Amino acid sequence: MIVGSVALDTIETPAGKAVEVLGGAATYSSVACSFFASAGIVAVVGEDFPAKYEKLLRARGIDTSGLARLPGRTFRWGGKYLKDVNKRETLFTELNVFEKFSPELPKPYRDAEYVFLANIHPALQFHVLDQVKSPRLIVCDTMNLWINTARKELEKLIPRVDVLMLNDEEARLLTGEFNLARAGHSLLKQGLLAAVIKRGEHGATVFHRRGVFFAPAYPLEDVKDPTGAGDTFAGGFIGYLAKSGRKDFAELKRAAVYGSVLASFAVQEFSLKRLLKITRADINRRFKEFHQLVSF
Amino acid sequence: MIVGSVALDTIETPAGKAVEVLGGAATYSSVACSFFASAGIVAVVGEDFPAKYEKLLRARGIDTSGLARLPGRTFRWGGKYLKDVNKRETLFTELNVFEKFSPELPKPYRDAEYVFLANIHPALQFHVLDQVKSPRLIVCDTMNLWINTARKELEKLIPRVDVLMLNDEEARLLTGEFNLARAGHSLLKQGLLAAVIKRGEHGATVFHRRGVFFAPAYPLEDVKDPTGAGDTFAGGFIGYLAKSGRKDFAELKRAAVYGSVLASFAVQEFSLKRLLKITRADINRRFKEFHQLVSF
Repeated sequence: MIVGSVALDTIETPAGKAVEVLGGAATYSSVACSFFASAGIVAVVGEDFPAKYEKLLRARGIDTSGLARLPGRTFRWGGKYLKDVNKRETLFTELNVFEKFSPELPKPYRDAEYVFLANIHPALQFHVLDQVKSPRLIVCDTMNLWINTARKELEKLIPRVDVLMLNDEEARLLTGEFNLARAGHSLLKQGLLAAVIKRGEHGATVFHRRGVFFAPAYPLEDVKDPTGAGDTFAGGFIGYLAKSGRKDFAELKRAAVYGSVLASFAVQEFSLKRLLKITRADINRRFKEFHQLVSF
Repeated sequence: MIVGSVALDTIETPAGKAVEVLGGAATYSSVACSFFASAGIVAVVGEDFPAKYEKLLRARGIDTSGLARLPGRTFRWGGKYLKDVNKRETLFTELNVFEKFSPELPKPYRDAEYVFLANIHPALQFHVLDQVKSPRLIVCDTMNLWINTARKELEKLIPRVDVLMLNDEEARLLTGEFNLARAGHSLLKQGLLAAVIKRGEHGATVFHRRGVFFAPAYPLEDVKDPTGAGDTFAGGFIGYLAKSGRKDFAELKRAAVYGSVLASFAVQEFSLKRLLKITRADINRRFKEFHQLVSF
């Protein structure tokens, strides 16, 4: 089960522009997940959400019974990336129906064993967990905004999740540790199975009580649109674990590499264009390339 | 053979301050190299250079017959690192005797098979190569200043070297490619055996016609002084290759990891303090930790 946003994105990058294309954390992560396991998504869209987009998710085996359609407009986000793809500028955020999003799980979703809480208010993430009966693995994302404005709720939530995913700045803000190795270990002490610190084009580091693992980002020559890379990583990560059924350190490492593999495809085209074109064979091939990249 | 600076550094970092300590590119790289092979250094110091420092280099098996002692003061550099150890501020540069440095090789040095040209003016690097009879492997470093002020000399030099090492900004400046994968491949086309793009705490990438290799930086909790990390990397890199006698892609990968291992020790204390304390066993242990860090 994946809880988060479904959005219409307008994106400018040095490679071009895309207007009102399919986006949102739940979208990217559920599509990435779909290569390994079928996710049910919990999200909200407005009356204007194109039917073709919902159809496209269903065609990937994604359960959209938790996708509420409310009166009003769909969440819209506009962003611009500079040459340094790790830096982006938000041009506009129209929350629309997402403003009043209160995730209520359809009954079958309450049995979900693998849960990805994409970046929404920690109180809402908490509310979701209260509805899930006996999850096996909970992965949680968050952002600067909540660390600054809802730190208490977030700190209450962390001991209930297994894997916390943040980017480097967020990890620093949350722990007060500038050094990322210290930040990672400080997060671990809060009762997590693993803390994953994402560093965009610099890869991601998995902190686990048995050690530290570094999943590199693939050195791509053709990054077109970095939107959704982190959510794609998370979707590939939890999808792989849901399929494997294990959650030991060795599997978490592989999950992180699969997450990086999926993210590396996602950024090669605007929106979900490339993700929707690849096959398991493409994924396996790039997984091997990742292996080559760091093997010595 | 290692050609470059020997300096007295004054360094401030969030972890403390060190005044007039041993530094310089040739110093860091020759000490790192010394774990694998004995380097002869070519550098210049002033009359004030403490005899104990030269003794310390000799004690590591480093040949200092190419270390000229000229009238005047030794090259001094002062720098300050911020919390983000990838960012530093130069507080002062006193070239002193280094200003007129013109590397003349003692006769036995002309037979050197492995040459590291640390960061000096490309015309001087060229002048060094003209004195070496039949080198097997030439590794060359450079910096923004020379790319901006001596681009022609640098471009003439590149086809004569085997491995060019630069940091990410320098690679972008030299190639005009912002994307590092493109920058790396563009450098390769200039006739190099390999291009190594260093990204400080984000690791280093080796570009070779047979593929791309990523050597991570170890996630250290105790970075005290990043000075010399890049030169230590280079010294470990060429030292390992000199010992191995091979220069295929597999060996270049291992050399990059040994370079990263040495650099990870260097930054754990001010100046060369930690580098001078470690043993081959420490190096081997951390080499295995690097392996663990990326194995999946």
